[in-house]
Amino acid sequence: MIRVIAKNFIKSENISAAAPLFRELIDATRKESGCIEYRLFIDSQAPAEYVFTEEWASQEALDTHMKSEHFQRIIPQIGELSSKPLEVAILSEFS
Amino acid sequence: MIRVIAKNFIKSENISAAAPLFRELIDATRKESGCIEYRLFIDSQAPAEYVFTEEWASQEALDTHMKSEHFQRIIPQIGELSSKPLEVAILSEFS
Repeated sequence: MIRVIAKNFIKSENISAAAPLFRELIDATRKESGCIEYRLFIDSQAPAEYVFTEEWASQEALDTHMKSEHFQRIIPQIGELSSKPLEVAILSEFS
Repeated sequence: MIRVIAKNFIKSENISAAAPLFRELIDATRKESGCIEYRLFIDSQAPAEYVFTEEWASQEALDTHMKSEHFQRIIPQIGELSSKPLEVAILSEFS
């Protein structure tokens, strides 16, 4: 099991443009094999920070996700709406 | 529903001292009313970063957690083992 926290920094003027991209990415990703959790949150103290909490059955499932058509197409589009690059943390569970 | 991501920065020489404190905090917190998720992860790229992913039924449940005996006692002990203060993000779900 692999947990991922991925933080997107969307420029405030681009939030409405980013919303349908996030929606499409979420809907497609949740259909992937090995996707246990794929949820998107907004930081209450930083409303331009969009944080995915993800859980994947294996490294292979995560690798397949990152090679998927929807990931390869949508992540760069979200990148263009961002003020800085995506920050991704790959986590393993404590004990 | 409230999602919390809380990042602890443990000094490398204190990791073995922090482990039983985390264990006790996890066990006590999971018994609290309104605690939906309370899991602890280690960042694979930064092994001194211990990241809680939490979910609470309400702000009231989170407030009660932060006033609990175990939180009030153990969090300062973990703080003494840390290189910098705990970083807490309070998140709300997108859409």
